[in-house]
Formats: sequence, structure tokens, C-alpha cells
Amino acid sequence: MKLRVRSELVYAFPQDTQAIVAIHVARTPDQAILSESLVISPDGPILQDMADHHGERRFRAAFEGETSIVYEATIDNAKPRLLSPNARLEAWLELPPPVLEYLLPSRYCPSDKFMSFAHREFGHLAPGGAQVLAVLDWIYNHVDYVPGSSHGGTTAENTFVDRAGICRDFTHLGISICRALNVPARAVSAYAWQLDPPDFHAVFEVYLDSVWWLVDATRLVPVENLVRVATGRDAADIAFLTTSGSCDLINQAVSVELLNP
Amino acid sequence: MKLRVRSELVYAFPQDTQAIVAIHVARTPDQAILSESLVISPDGPILQDMADHHGERRFRAAFEGETSIVYEATIDNAKPRLLSPNARLEAWLELPPPVLEYLLPSRYCPSDKFMSFAHREFGHLAPGGAQVLAVLDWIYNHVDYVPGSSHGGTTAENTFVDRAGICRDFTHLGISICRALNVPARAVSAYAWQLDPPDFHAVFEVYLDSVWWLVDATRLVPVENLVRVATGRDAADIAFLTTSGSCDLINQAVSVELLNP
Amino acid sequence: MKLRVRSELVYAFPQDTQAIVAIHVARTPDQAILSESLVISPDGPILQDMADHHGERRFRAAFEGETSIVYEATIDNAKPRLLSPNARLEAWLELPPPVLEYLLPSRYCPSDKFMSFAHREFGHLAPGGAQVLAVLDWIYNHVDYVPGSSHGGTTAENTFVDRAGICRDFTHLGISICRALNVPARAVSAYAWQLDPPDFHAVFEVYLDSVWWLVDATRLVPVENLVRVATGRDAADIAFLTTSGSCDLINQAVSVELLNP
Amino acid sequence: MKLRVRSELVYAFPQDTQAIVAIHVARTPDQAILSESLVISPDGPILQDMADHHGERRFRAAFEGETSIVYEATIDNAKPRLLSPNARLEAWLELPPPVLEYLLPSRYCPSDKFMSFAHREFGHLAPGGAQVLAVLDWIYNHVDYVPGSSHGGTTAENTFVDRAGICRDFTHLGISICRALNVPARAVSAYAWQLDPPDFHAVFEVYLDSVWWLVDATRLVPVENLVRVATGRDAADIAFLTTSGSCDLINQAVSVELLNP
Repeated sequence: MKLRVRSELVYAFPQDTQAIVAIHVARTPDQAILSESLVISPDGPILQDMADHHGERRFRAAFEGETSIVYEATIDNAKPRLLSPNARLEAWLELPPPVLEYLLPSRYCPSDKFMSFAHREFGHLAPGGAQVLAVLDWIYNHVDYVPGSSHGGTTAENTFVDRAGICRDFTHLGISICRALNVPARAVSAYAWQLDPPDFHAVFEVYLDSVWWLVDATRLVPVENLVRVATGRDAADIAFLTTSGSCDLINQAVSVELLNP
Repeated sequence: MKLRVRSELVYAFPQDTQAIVAIHVARTPDQAILSESLVISPDGPILQDMADHHGERRFRAAFEGETSIVYEATIDNAKPRLLSPNARLEAWLELPPPVLEYLLPSRYCPSDKFMSFAHREFGHLAPGGAQVLAVLDWIYNHVDYVPGSSHGGTTAENTFVDRAGICRDFTHLGISICRALNVPARAVSAYAWQLDPPDFHAVFEVYLDSVWWLVDATRLVPVENLVRVATGRDAADIAFLTTSGSCDLINQAVSVELLNP
Repeated sequence: MKLRVRSELVYAFPQDTQAIVAIHVARTPDQAILSESLVISPDGPILQDMADHHGERRFRAAFEGETSIVYEATIDNAKPRLLSPNARLEAWLELPPPVLEYLLPSRYCPSDKFMSFAHREFGHLAPGGAQVLAVLDWIYNHVDYVPGSSHGGTTAENTFVDRAGICRDFTHLGISICRALNVPARAVSAYAWQLDPPDFHAVFEVYLDSVWWLVDATRLVPVENLVRVATGRDAADIAFLTTSGSCDLINQAVSVELLNP
Repeated sequence: MKLRVRSELVYAFPQDTQAIVAIHVARTPDQAILSESLVISPDGPILQDMADHHGERRFRAAFEGETSIVYEATIDNAKPRLLSPNARLEAWLELPPPVLEYLLPSRYCPSDKFMSFAHREFGHLAPGGAQVLAVLDWIYNHVDYVPGSSHGGTTAENTFVDRAGICRDFTHLGISICRALNVPARAVSAYAWQLDPPDFHAVFEVYLDSVWWLVDATRLVPVENLVRVATGRDAADIAFLTTSGSCDLINQAVSVELLNP
């Protein structure tokens, strides 16, 4: 599926501010980058980090004053396989070393707190794809998607009590419950075709049968509509903009367009 | 300094339990391993992970029933350089990519919450070694070392309010404040000569002037007495024992002995 | 039902410490006090507060050094009415003024956080007795009674996530959900015949049909086995011992004996 | 000082909603009510509660649809005595029973968590007025007044970490630290002359030398400019509007005018 993605970030940096920006589409075997451009105004030096083992391609820069960052790319995405109920949960002894960290709790995903709940609610199901699908169903049925109901410090524990959140909260809750079930899980930021209103999207992946499966607890768009950007333990790792100091949002726009049906 | 370290973990695993064990001394240029042994009873297969870029060498296994793990090593440690007040804080553009994650908040180190405090209290100091030393002084002077005052879920935010904790809490608070000051900081587990009572110790490192400096907010022992084991974002990453299910402590003993003065 | 209750508190107060003690059985129309005694060693002045509108009778004193407080009473309890599914929830306009505070969140019962959950889970039921009984069923079926799983700072929000607690945690969760459903709810401490192991018990009351109904989410003993002591918003108000400084438990024993069947 | 106060609340209630409204000025010996009026549109029955022992005069009503509540009063205030450094902290044995509850933690004032901090920071000062004045100084010097920095669920613990808040947060932190020092403390809502921008204000009172002393950790206006409304454990008790369900703010305006110098 050929998609054109575009993001425009306009921020005011009151003083010289360091930044890590993660808006480039990831370079992965399933996601061909046909063309892309990055325009920063005013212009200045950036450090483009190499794609890491996730294919993630962030860049670093220092900004001061009003700054506009416009990224555009045309990509061709393979259709991802949907998580199969039969996908097998592997033993820890079988996992590749880089997968292990995704078993552990993180800033917004305190999976250690969800042990009892996860085993009470999902422990009777066979570990693996069916169990993860049951987690996704549970979240969809017990949490409302409510813009404005959470904030930057909201954790999966908060969302579990509040029963409301946005994509990042659904993702944190899904990751937390999966990790509590010993399923490696990690956060993924994405451009999403047909997401309404258009914005960056946060979804997650679980590791079963030796591959990462992309899932979305919000069910806002099919996972095949997603264009992967960054990968990490939770929102702290995949933020599109991480800065050394405060800055003010002036304008932000994300768009995704289908190039051929 | 030649040291002999020994740890003995005896746990009862009520069912077949997967485990990641991080008790081996790290393999680093400054820490020569002269000899070591690992005895697990009852015996069973383990997977010894290769040393990662931190030199960390955890192993994985599955345990059931009462299990004893005894690790011994003799090492020769170089004397570490003590953090200099003049050590320079580098710009984000200068940092090696693997250092970047240590700027971000993690499970027990919600550095995002400490921005105001850190800048109010330490913002007038020049960034770098002197500022980090001031953070260490502040923690030492404002937090009491009180065994039993915290638990497995205690975060740096809790410790900041409680004003009491143990080594892991001092470390989490130190890391959180440093990251809030844009100083990369990470947790380190260690054997510690002269630690009383003997136990695993948790300290941290800050990245300044292109190197990691080991520091200890508890001041329980000099950093030159430490033998490095694991490295990570916080206690979640460096636990000596991470398991897929609950288990019961039967006995645990750690000892460190000086072999030559 | 004639019951003899006894509590013995032995504490060491390292310095002159002020205390509020709530161990006397309440003086209420349904609970006749046949005899009672209080012995404090070493002896000293106490201030016995008058029974408040709940019948609660705490006393105040200052203690220093090892102190023993022994309270004994023989009471004759009327059999309480069990909460009827038909008990009607009254409008706020109909409530007596002293009931209003029990609609509000308190230290361990942040009912404001449970609005969404309570309405999602119980909103389809008619307000009143049946709804409260459904809350009690839900707690009983979703939370494990696990001694040692909580601590003095544990709130209903923590218990809701942990899915484990003791009587005070069950009570806090029950109160929180009821208040979130606009049902006045308050905590009650009690002696409990047949409670095993014997200890002070914490239960709660809901206000429906112009009376307070005693309920117990733990189902450890029938409510007719309870002898009421103190009443308040949550555990902060009904603690058997509130002190101005730290003290050390030396011994504590509670017993309840049936005098006639 | 003669002041005219006015508040106008315009809210939309999507369904029949019960409400407790606390906007009437309190009836106290020091605060003479010369005239007042309450106009609710559309009109409907209300239940005006009698002034309680704090002089607080809330009313109850049920609202549906867009509703306007306009309250106006002219009052004559005595000049309050300013907290004296010499005001004496009384022993618990000396306190009137209704004061005791203000020693205990509450929803937004978890004073139990501030024991160590309070004693470390203020324990060297003689208990009483001077110690409370030191607490007020500390808050003023360590917390920034930042509109928008907190939300309805923010507790004193959050504010202590964030080092930012609004009047209710300053008040909660002040109350928490005072209670941790065994000083009875309670929240007060008020109209405030010269508050800019005009709004309801939240301050607190401490009980020393047998009287309640009004203090304001924000220092936004002198305490003599305050017109007392409601009194309680914290913001949960003194909210100007407590409702049984959600409602939407349409307009809210508060004004205070000096009638003669």
C-alpha cells in the first residue's frame, strides 16, 4: 500500500534547546521508503542517527526561537500479518537477548503491578496469541477512548482505574498486561491512514513465535494502515519530540494519504 | 584491588519458573576476572548470555522446587576515577547513541516529575561534575538510610516525599534528578567490600566528558570497593533475580573479601 | 447475642507521645454495654471523650515508655438487619446534613477516581440495595484476601489494581465504589466473633432508606458477629491507635467470646 | 471592612443532577452579613442547610439543563488577627473534640507521608506559631504559583514533587505539613478582594492557643481581604459545587468590591 505521510511541527523554543526528533518512518524490510524530505526552518545542523535494530531513525538538533520541522515521505508498505490466536509464547530461554528488556516494567507500563489482575483475568487461557487477543478485547470493552482524559504523566495504572484514555494510554495498558503475562511487549509510534482526527498514533507489538506482531487496542484503524516510526519500552522512548527544556506548541499537523488503492 | 565475591541464593519455586539471573561480575576493561564458578543445585541447563556492551553477563534458566545458586569469583579491580567537579556535560548532539536512553524516565526513575525541583535547587550551578556532586550532597543530607522503609514498588517520587530509603531508593532518586538536569544516568548493581550488613548494592553512573562515572548517594562504602555486576535504566533492569512467577526466599547471603591490601 | 470482647495493646513509646485510642465498644441503641473495664499500666490521666453521634467513645492520653492498655467489655447485641436489595437510595435533598460528608472522597477512598468504573460496571442496576450488593459481590470475586499484601499507605486505588488486600482494603474499595455511585458510605471498626485469626476488623456502612446498613466485603464473618467500635470516613478516622509520634508494637491481642448461644 | 461579593455560576447539566453548592458567605461572629441574594434560573426548590459550627451555609438542589446561579452579598468583616509566632501548640488532651479530625490525613492532604520531611525541616523549631510561619515561608520559597500546573486529582504529595500549583495546591501542602507536625489544620474557601484574576480562593487555618488562625501560603492577598465561605478537611469538603454527575462549565465569574475603605 503506497502512502504519503507528512508531519509538520512548529514550536517556539524560548532558549537554546536540545532535541531528539522521531518522525522519520522506520527503515524495515516491510516498509519501503520511496522518497522522503525533511525541511527545518530556520536551517541548522542536525545529527541523523543510523537506523537502529528496530529500523528507527531519529535525529538530533538544537533549536532556538520559533522553529518549523516538516517531514514528508512516500512509502510502500507490505500488508502485516494479523496476530494469530495460535501464535506460541516462547520460553525465556528461547528469546533473543534484545527481546528480554520488553518483559520488564517501564515508566508508563508498571507491569509488576498487574500480575494478580492479569493472572485472574487471563490466566485460564493458553499463553500466546489467543491470550493477547483476549487482552485486547478486554481493554476495548472496559476502557473508553476519551480525548483529554489523560495527560503526560498518566501511567497504565491510572488508566486501569480511570477506564478512559487515548491511544498512548490504551497502548500502555496493553503492554503492561502483556508483560505481566510474560509476553514481551513494546510501544510503536506510527503514522496512521484514516485516523480521525489525524495525529501521531501509538500502538504496540508483542513477541510470539519469534516475531513481533503489531496490535492496536484502540481499534481506531486497521494495523495495515500504520506506517511505523519509532519503537521502545513506552511513550518515553518513542516521543516524536524530546527536549532538554520546555517549549511551546504553535502548530502541529499530521496527514496520511493513500496514493493507490 | 583483588577481591573474592560470593553470592548464594536459595529460593523455592512452587512451579516451573523461568528466571533471569544477574549475579556474575561484569567483564570490563577495569575489572579482570581471575576465576569464577557457578554451582546450581539441582543441576539443569542454563543459557549464559554473552556480555553486552556494558559487560553485563546474566544467565537464563528454568527452576522448580528448592534451588540453590552459588556464584563465586575472584577479580582484580582498577581503582576508579572519582567524579571530578570539572567533568563537562556534553550536548545531546555529542552523545553516543546508546547513551541517549539514559536521559529518559524509567519505571522507578520518573525524571519528568523532577524538572522543576532540579532546576530550582541545582539550576544555578554549572552543568557537569559539580552539579552532580551537589545532587549527591543534597540526597545524603535530605534522605535517611532506613532499612525496611521502602518496598519493591517504591519510586524516586515516593522516596523524595518519604525522605527515607535504602540503596536502591537513593540510586533511583539520584538518577531521576540527574536525568531531570539532562545528565545521562543509569543504575549499576554491585558487590561491595565492607558493606555492612553484606548485601547486593545499588549505585549509579553519570555520563560526563565521554565517560561513565560511578557514584553512590548512600556513601556506605567508597566506590573503589565496588565490583560491577549489571547495568540498566533502574532496578527493573538490574535485579539479581527476575522470575516469571512468584517464588519464596529461603536464604540469601552475599560476601566480599579482600585478598590483598 | 451476648459477647465478651477484650483487646490488649502493649506498645513502647520512645518519648512522651500523645494518643487517641478507639477501642471502646460504641454506645448505640442496638448494642447494650453490660459491663466494661479499662486498665492502663502504668496508670495516668486520660480524657474520655463523650460518645459522639455515632456512639463512638475514644479516649485521649499521653504515654511514655512501655505501656499496656487492656480493655474488656460484655455487650448484648441486637441482630442487625441485613441489607435488603430493595433498600432505596435517597436523593441528596433528603439526606440529613451529617450524612453528606460520606458522599465525598477521603484519604484512602478516592471515590472521585472510580466514577467511570462504577458507572460502567454497576450503572445498569437500579440504585439502592441491589446495586450495593452487586458491588460487594464484585469485590469478593475480584480481590483476594492476602495478609501482608498491603501497608499503611495503601489506598482503594492501589487495591483495585493489586487485586489483593486485607479487611481495611476491601472496606476502602467498597466505600470508594459506593460513593462513586452517590451512595453515602463510611468505615466502621469492630470486634468480630469467630474472626480467624482474631484481630480488629474493618467493615463499612451504606446509607439507604434513611438508615445505615452494615456490610462486609470480605465475608469473613456474618455482620451479626460484629461489635461496633468507631465510625469515620476511612481507616484514618477509625484507627484503634493514633499517635503524635512513632511507637513500637510489643504485643497486641484481640479476643471475642460468645457468652450465650 | 465592607465588601460586596458576587459569584455567578452558569453550568449545563445534561441530565437531572443533584448538587451541593457552597458559595454563601459564612455566618461567623467576625463577619456580619448586611444583605445577600441568591437567584437561580430556571427557578426551583432548594434546601438551605443551617449554618454548621463553622458558620458554613451550603444549599442543595437538583439541576437540569443550563442553569445560572447568582449569589451576591454585602458583608462587614472584622480585621483578623495575624498568626503570632508565639501562638502555642496545645496538647491533644486540651483540644475540643471537633478539632481532632483536622489532625488526620485526608483525600488531598496525606499528612502521614510528610512525617519525615516535616520533622527534618521544621522539627528544630519550637512547636506553635513560629513553626507554622516557617512552613508558610518554606512553601512560598519552594513552590511556584503556576496556573494550569495541576488538576482536580492533584494531592499535596504531587505538589511537593512538582514544586508548582495553584491556591488549592499551596493550601493542601500547607495543611499536610502542619498536620504532620501535629498542628490541626483545615481548608477554607473564600472570596478575596484584590485577587487577580478574580476567582474563588482556597486558604487554610491552623488551631493554636485555642483559636483558628487564617493563613495563606500563596501570599496573593492579605488575609484581611478574605471573606470566608466553607470549611473542611480539604478541597473535597469545600468545593463550591459538588454534583452527582458530570456537568459542563458555561461561564463562571467572581467579583469582590470594596464598599468603604
